[in-house]
Amino acid sequence: MKIGVVQQKYHGSKILMLEATVTAIKALKAEGAELVVLQELHQDRYFCVNENVENFMLAESYEEDVAFWAKVAKESSVVLVVSLFEKRAVGLYHNSAIVFEKDGSIAGKYRKMHIPDDPGFYEKFYFTPGDLGFEPIETSVGKLGVLICWDQWFPEAARLMTLKGADILIYPTAIGWFDEDCEAEKARQLDAWMTVQRGHAIANGVPVVAINRIGKELDDAKVIDGIRFWGNSFVVDAQGAYLYRGSKDKEEAVLVDIDTSKSEEIRRIWPFLRDRRIDAYEKITYRFID
Amino acid sequence: MKIGVVQQKYHGSKILMLEATVTAIKALKAEGAELVVLQELHQDRYFCVNENVENFMLAESYEEDVAFWAKVAKESSVVLVVSLFEKRAVGLYHNSAIVFEKDGSIAGKYRKMHIPDDPGFYEKFYFTPGDLGFEPIETSVGKLGVLICWDQWFPEAARLMTLKGADILIYPTAIGWFDEDCEAEKARQLDAWMTVQRGHAIANGVPVVAINRIGKELDDAKVIDGIRFWGNSFVVDAQGAYLYRGSKDKEEAVLVDIDTSKSEEIRRIWPFLRDRRIDAYEKITYRFID
Repeated sequence: MKIGVVQQKYHGSKILMLEATVTAIKALKAEGAELVVLQELHQDRYFCVNENVENFMLAESYEEDVAFWAKVAKESSVVLVVSLFEKRAVGLYHNSAIVFEKDGSIAGKYRKMHIPDDPGFYEKFYFTPGDLGFEPIETSVGKLGVLICWDQWFPEAARLMTLKGADILIYPTAIGWFDEDCEAEKARQLDAWMTVQRGHAIANGVPVVAINRIGKELDDAKVIDGIRFWGNSFVVDAQGAYLYRGSKDKEEAVLVDIDTSKSEEIRRIWPFLRDRRIDAYEKITYRFID
Repeated sequence: MKIGVVQQKYHGSKILMLEATVTAIKALKAEGAELVVLQELHQDRYFCVNENVENFMLAESYEEDVAFWAKVAKESSVVLVVSLFEKRAVGLYHNSAIVFEKDGSIAGKYRKMHIPDDPGFYEKFYFTPGDLGFEPIETSVGKLGVLICWDQWFPEAARLMTLKGADILIYPTAIGWFDEDCEAEKARQLDAWMTVQRGHAIANGVPVVAINRIGKELDDAKVIDGIRFWGNSFVVDAQGAYLYRGSKDKEEAVLVDIDTSKSEEIRRIWPFLRDRRIDAYEKITYRFID
């Protein structure tokens, strides 16, 4: 499976972002990409840095955005995973990933299930938690287990995608550091982020792709300084071994070739799916067991 | 929480193992250990390297073994986690961890829930899967989420222990390489083993302790060459950062001080337990979703 991974900074406007992204997709297609994956909310800056009702305007173009990316997928004849701010009804919004087939048709949609909320990442203000569940999206290149950012910390999401036959897990992401944190803490956060996702690859015997943005984005409300997105987009195989690891501060459009037969190989010798104690897991659906 | 971690080779006989282990426990107590954790099936060589009915004899002393370790815990006044071959009835055996209080009383027992079976690790022949579920054991030093070896690959086990209030996850282990594998594959296996467990620490905001044996143990049935146990016992904090990492080939008895308030700190800023989509996890109890 030849995947194009696009790690970007915010270019200052939506128009410039679309141009840069289309250019990257075309270049990856020319290199042989069958599938291209983009970072979370790649059309804009990461606007959830503060709570501002004006930002809901960014979702007004949702239908146009879908039509735009459908055309891009068709023109480049790639399977394309985009991440959009979805207006579903008046006052009802989602953080959604749309997957397009090579002919521009919609293969499927995923609405972010786990929504974060912590200083600088005020997503509960903007996004209603997804109601489409954890369903892999069938495409001509395989069943894509598309999840989004905060979902990456939840082993349940990765497991459910695997049990439903996902060939790969894909996490469009927007995560970064606060400059005021010390270097040791920054290193621990980045390491934890990579480790927990590599853990999903290992526990499930599936490759994992995470795509993150780069660049410092300021908080225009001036409550916090801003976020320095840490890049480090990566691809690991079904044993958790790196196939690609991006820089922390450079734009990248890189083709990564994933050998999906590794899942067959690794699950035969580490057959975790065989040994799961499904008779003893029912309390996973509890909030806490007091 | 001052934990003593004991990484050992097989000393050639049970008597010699008991002597070496008691010596290590006493030394750790002298350094200030409140809790001592031992590797999987630490009384003997790892006998599951082949299937031999003679090995069931090793479980005949189960009641005596429990009495012996109770006395050791009491004499050193430490909470002690041991790993024993439990004979429960004629023809019914478990791979069990017993936790003793400082006064030698039994604080609780865990029977290994996930049982492996692959070349050199024929545990399904010896051990009936546990029927005590995933229950942390309450002790004077905290609630111990004791799991055993193969359990470490299953995020469900770590999650359930966390939901039941475990302050720490503890994995007595016996895992190693085959000498005939290439160095790159050995490195990938070791890395996967550490990564998946560090992932549990991160996803759950709990410290994790894994204790593994060292040394090459031959297969007396000569079907395989044997197993070179890879050591690398480790302790990570609630953010997955290393507090201790043992060698691959040396015996170690090391005191590690875990700051359990880190769970409070990390779960406040990474509140995964807050955001779990318990309304959407029910199919975790399925074998596969066709």
